[in-house]
Amino acid sequence: MKIDTVEQIRDMARGAAFLGSGGGGDPYIGQLMLQQEVLQGRLPDIIKAAQLDDEARVISVAGIGSPPVLLEHLLSGTLFARLLEKMEAHLGYRIDALISAEIGGLNSMMPLAVGARAQLPVLDADGMGRAFPHLEMVTFSVYGCRATPAMLLNELGDCAVIDAHDDLTAEKMGRSITASLGAMAYMALYPMTGKQVKHYAVHDTISLCLTIGRGIRHARATLDDPITGLVAELEQPETGRCCRLLFDGKITDVTHEIKDGWHFGTVKLASHHGSDDVMVIDIQNEYLAARRNDKTVAIVPDLICLLDADTLEPQTAEKLKYGQRVKVVGFSAAPIMRRPECLEVFGPQAFGYKEAFLPLEDVD
Amino acid sequence: MKIDTVEQIRDMARGAAFLGSGGGGDPYIGQLMLQQEVLQGRLPDIIKAAQLDDEARVISVAGIGSPPVLLEHLLSGTLFARLLEKMEAHLGYRIDALISAEIGGLNSMMPLAVGARAQLPVLDADGMGRAFPHLEMVTFSVYGCRATPAMLLNELGDCAVIDAHDDLTAEKMGRSITASLGAMAYMALYPMTGKQVKHYAVHDTISLCLTIGRGIRHARATLDDPITGLVAELEQPETGRCCRLLFDGKITDVTHEIKDGWHFGTVKLASHHGSDDVMVIDIQNEYLAARRNDKTVAIVPDLICLLDADTLEPQTAEKLKYGQRVKVVGFSAAPIMRRPECLEVFGPQAFGYKEAFLPLEDVD
Repeated sequence: MKIDTVEQIRDMARGAAFLGSGGGGDPYIGQLMLQQEVLQGRLPDIIKAAQLDDEARVISVAGIGSPPVLLEHLLSGTLFARLLEKMEAHLGYRIDALISAEIGGLNSMMPLAVGARAQLPVLDADGMGRAFPHLEMVTFSVYGCRATPAMLLNELGDCAVIDAHDDLTAEKMGRSITASLGAMAYMALYPMTGKQVKHYAVHDTISLCLTIGRGIRHARATLDDPITGLVAELEQPETGRCCRLLFDGKITDVTHEIKDGWHFGTVKLASHHGSDDVMVIDIQNEYLAARRNDKTVAIVPDLICLLDADTLEPQTAEKLKYGQRVKVVGFSAAPIMRRPECLEVFGPQAFGYKEAFLPLEDVD
Repeated sequence: MKIDTVEQIRDMARGAAFLGSGGGGDPYIGQLMLQQEVLQGRLPDIIKAAQLDDEARVISVAGIGSPPVLLEHLLSGTLFARLLEKMEAHLGYRIDALISAEIGGLNSMMPLAVGARAQLPVLDADGMGRAFPHLEMVTFSVYGCRATPAMLLNELGDCAVIDAHDDLTAEKMGRSITASLGAMAYMALYPMTGKQVKHYAVHDTISLCLTIGRGIRHARATLDDPITGLVAELEQPETGRCCRLLFDGKITDVTHEIKDGWHFGTVKLASHHGSDDVMVIDIQNEYLAARRNDKTVAIVPDLICLLDADTLEPQTAEKLKYGQRVKVVGFSAAPIMRRPECLEVFGPQAFGYKEAFLPLEDVD
């Protein structure tokens, strides 16, 4: 699989924004970084997990912090290279391949840009097939591949190596260090072996980004009912993936609140068909639950995506505006993400809901 | 020099509380730790910097965090031993001696207890001859012996190694990590050589603690004007140290405010000689400035110590109570602490005062 044109890079970024389910940060700066590499002839080498040796050494790289701060600073390929070098020195071995921990949003693009620069292959896989706000909310961690030892580095050379007894603590330490460094840092984490990646990653998610991004691009050019065609294209029975148009309407209210560094809020929508047909969507960085006339129609870890009605461009939660017309699409999480041990870490109850997980396709 | 009796340990703790200048945390838990070592026959070996090889490897150990949390958890000798071991592995060399970074308050006692346990000599010296709230506020740092690489560890094995481009950043990182670990951690920091210690430390400060602690103990047993005798004993022209009784009165008002984890406040005192003779003392963790009838009579880095009028026990700022009768004693900072390059980092202006430093002995 290749990503060697600007059109493909944009497809990738658009697909990553879709899988962000409202969160994960805007992939735009990642898109710029990757574009720069590709335009200079350094193409990312995207490989399948099956191509890895069991003993291969894999690691994630990510930009972490407050998205507005990340956007102001951009991100530096040189600094990612330095981070990798320092992390290899700390671990005492060379890294053979990179993987995204979070395919939804900005950090889908980082490993591709860094891999292109460092001439390291990048896996067609990630740790959630979507976006989540915490380090422990990845399949890697659920199955014992811990976030730490992890390294944080910034432009001034400030560096921290953390080693926590669990990934919830790693999350707290990483977040507090990032805050102390001015709300942005470069991070290397989840050191794994090839064997672990094969067993515990969510596979083929770069491919999925490209499929979704291309699907949106094609649908956008269709005059006749583009959203129905897109939803039909994303329904993939062969991989157990289900896609549904959940709602078509306009935003009548949206609230945003920042609490402890997290983005909480609610989006209310009214249908074009009548004002008594409404949808309410909860935001906790990502869109977590969608309720139509008080009935749950999609809930985490299944994905809820809001697309602008005109452009079908996926909308991150902080961008939503009163009066905006949107299409709400539900997309089922990867099968591994719906296992009981995974739902314990990032199912509805992990986010404070009392209700159990209800798969998108079981809603009548 | 020996510390091998409970009486000497108490002298040491009392002297450390005096040098804390209202801050640095209550030495009590450090006293307990050291007492336990001494009672089990493990005596601290206290050496002078001149006894060190120039190439010797020295490091500070400290308990850091919120004093009430430190008091709840106590501190573990075993964990300090583990911290030292992990830090040696990280640095790639063995540690030859320990030093206190801050002789005022709790962290005067830690190196003594840890050194007794680990059979490592402890230097009769520290980095400030008093207490200060920040990592960069030590002579070590002023003269280029940086706080980092530093290591933080807690009881659960959560560990962070930090390496910052300056000690102000190290302070922010260390503080935020400590907060994320529940407001307490064990820390190893300021790796130095014997040569650096000889040049840049504040010397003979364990001896000074013992002298002060013993002086207070003796004065307490004196019936006739004990405070005058104590002040005369602490005046040490041969080491450039000046001691003054600044005020004798009772507390008429005391305010406490916690802002960003720091303790701010003001103490107001009225003289026994008449209500128009008043003193106001500013608190920023430590007592920073004392003004008698609006005239500055002592200011940081010179020490301001409040002693209970009955027991002459040094009082930390958070203990002060309305109606309490206290003696206010001024004690000049060590000469090295008054150099221009040091005053830049911890003189009046570093704490937001507009006025310049005025040595205690120059006040008329």
